[in-house]
Amino acid sequence: MKYSDKIINTPSSFIRNILKVASSEDVISFAGGLPNPISFPIVELQKTINDAIEEHGPKLFQYSTTEGYLPLRQYIANKYNNNFGISIEPEDILITTGSQQALEMISQVLINKGEGIIVEEPGYLGALQAFSLTEPTFYPVPLTEEGLNVEQLTQTLLENPHIKFIYTVPNFQNPTGITYTRENREAIYEVVKNFDVVLIEDDPYGDLRWRGEKLPYIGAGRLENSVILGSFSKIVTPGFRIGYLVTKNKELLNHVNTAKQATDLHTNIFSQIVIHDYLAKNDLVTHIAKITDLYQAQASAMQEAMDKYFPPTVKYTKPDGGMFMWVTLDEGLSALELFHKAMDAKVAFVPGDPFYTCKENVNTLRLNYTNSSPEVIEEGIKRLGKILYEVTAKELV
Amino acid sequence: MKYSDKIINTPSSFIRNILKVASSEDVISFAGGLPNPISFPIVELQKTINDAIEEHGPKLFQYSTTEGYLPLRQYIANKYNNNFGISIEPEDILITTGSQQALEMISQVLINKGEGIIVEEPGYLGALQAFSLTEPTFYPVPLTEEGLNVEQLTQTLLENPHIKFIYTVPNFQNPTGITYTRENREAIYEVVKNFDVVLIEDDPYGDLRWRGEKLPYIGAGRLENSVILGSFSKIVTPGFRIGYLVTKNKELLNHVNTAKQATDLHTNIFSQIVIHDYLAKNDLVTHIAKITDLYQAQASAMQEAMDKYFPPTVKYTKPDGGMFMWVTLDEGLSALELFHKAMDAKVAFVPGDPFYTCKENVNTLRLNYTNSSPEVIEEGIKRLGKILYEVTAKELV
Repeated sequence: MKYSDKIINTPSSFIRNILKVASSEDVISFAGGLPNPISFPIVELQKTINDAIEEHGPKLFQYSTTEGYLPLRQYIANKYNNNFGISIEPEDILITTGSQQALEMISQVLINKGEGIIVEEPGYLGALQAFSLTEPTFYPVPLTEEGLNVEQLTQTLLENPHIKFIYTVPNFQNPTGITYTRENREAIYEVVKNFDVVLIEDDPYGDLRWRGEKLPYIGAGRLENSVILGSFSKIVTPGFRIGYLVTKNKELLNHVNTAKQATDLHTNIFSQIVIHDYLAKNDLVTHIAKITDLYQAQASAMQEAMDKYFPPTVKYTKPDGGMFMWVTLDEGLSALELFHKAMDAKVAFVPGDPFYTCKENVNTLRLNYTNSSPEVIEEGIKRLGKILYEVTAKELV
Repeated sequence: MKYSDKIINTPSSFIRNILKVASSEDVISFAGGLPNPISFPIVELQKTINDAIEEHGPKLFQYSTTEGYLPLRQYIANKYNNNFGISIEPEDILITTGSQQALEMISQVLINKGEGIIVEEPGYLGALQAFSLTEPTFYPVPLTEEGLNVEQLTQTLLENPHIKFIYTVPNFQNPTGITYTRENREAIYEVVKNFDVVLIEDDPYGDLRWRGEKLPYIGAGRLENSVILGSFSKIVTPGFRIGYLVTKNKELLNHVNTAKQATDLHTNIFSQIVIHDYLAKNDLVTHIAKITDLYQAQASAMQEAMDKYFPPTVKYTKPDGGMFMWVTLDEGLSALELFHKAMDAKVAFVPGDPFYTCKENVNTLRLNYTNSSPEVIEEGIKRLGKILYEVTAKELV
């Protein structure tokens, strides 16, 4: 059998591949991207399910429409209208099987083989994987502490007219935890508005802010080809696989709808109705505060431990929300080599490599803090610190 | 904005497009492909859900593995081993977001632009749509009352070495209701075994047999590149979007797994666990008998009505199970024109056109009988018959 070029060139996920070892009982794992189970409102969901079965009956179990459950789309529209003052209608929204599916479909709808996609460097590996299925040319633009490097963004757009879309995660980015500043967003907007490209703002973590003020979107509400992606995975449950895509570009949405028909007909309707009814009947703000309180404590524990146990030359980001931190080791060090040593010491993380489209043996790595207690976090960082000191000492010799 | 060639060339679904008109209260619809709500074991599912929350807790709501819930894959493996005596392991199975997703992924994994796919003529329109996203060349092979035309199948395979897979629905085919005979299956096997192609046997309706004996698969258990697709949509619930892919070709399954990671990470785990626990704790055979008893009565009502009200020159299939019948009008008549007249008389069906890759204004149409009572079926067919007599009379003039 010969397989398609696109699948041969699509990397399988490093994270999914190490899931088995990383999730073994005796390993302290900072590798995954799992929300803490505290974020699943199980008792409320169970009540909602039982009520929904009484109320909706067979409708929960039958085939449904491709665009998704109307009241859920109305809820999402209201949320954007209330929180960001941008005018979104239910007709501007498509419910997807997790926002991962939206990534794959947008790429299918826009990219002919070889056409360009601007991605953050480093960028979300699941997005790189989804886009790879359409055989694009990747144009990585570096992230700084402030957000996307605007000069390089401009240069890249000017030099490559076949670029179809820009993929960003402006809030608590995966893998770095970086949030684009207000000024950076404005500067990006001023550039992008001059080009015929789609701007994707993927925002699964935006609600998970424990410090600072909510920032406006870059393009939503003012760029014709703006797309926002959202998800209930980090604030209600990822197990239901409910995400969504928002755009006021009707033609684009229409094409995505056709791709959705072809891909899985529609998203699980039982889960859509249950998520909607849960949101309609419960206090989401209080629920989210419970999650962010926990994550803030975990993030603090990790930062304090790194201050204490890591060599002072090691740098790391200090996010105001979200689920990840990004560590930069001394130049010349390989995070992948460190990964193997760390696994021997029963600590897992994700080396930076899979977050780049064309770099290997990088000196960066991603840490997740949402799934371990502060005590376990300290122990894991302590072990990593010990290895880092050993490695650094060896280098000096 | 310019969109990709593949999405421009992917038709949107005729059925989904007419869903709104066809599902209006005063229309008798034979257009959809909805299972009867009798097939949703709502009471049992509700009990299963409540038990599952007690038993599994957060696991129902967390991210999960790409290949799918192991006990569900074990259940599926056992079903094939017990019913067909073919040795399937859980490792040979991937759970998909409806079997629709399996169609799209197989095409992504196998097809480079322009490469060939053999499809049934007429064939399942959702499959044609899913495959279109990879820009293949379609090679339709006609269906006969016995199954695939083996001579044309052979010829097509011999003349087109770039054909990568053959897509079949051997049991109660959509749209025709035809089941491949035992001899036809054997003859197809004897041909296909000599070619390096994948044989897909899509089997969503196989369990819905009310007459005759279960037939062996064509390739499963003996062809290296055999793929079976299955689904719980027609026997438990389509709302959960749980389908699966079975193949003993490890390399193929590995590539599909990568496509699945890229497409939606994994299938809704809550629904996977609930479906599994429901199957483990309930008598599926009795449940299915209830469904097939109803469908048999509905199919009989439709046949009797067609005998009574249709012009004698109109032909139609007489399925032994499944959800559809296929009607062939007098040559020269257009089912699409009939569709518009029928909608005026508040009866909906699907004209044959979207089931062909390169034919228009065909004289065939699909009728679904699973969602109307025998009385409503008689009334709908009576109205159609009246129009058919009028149209035929006009033709004679």
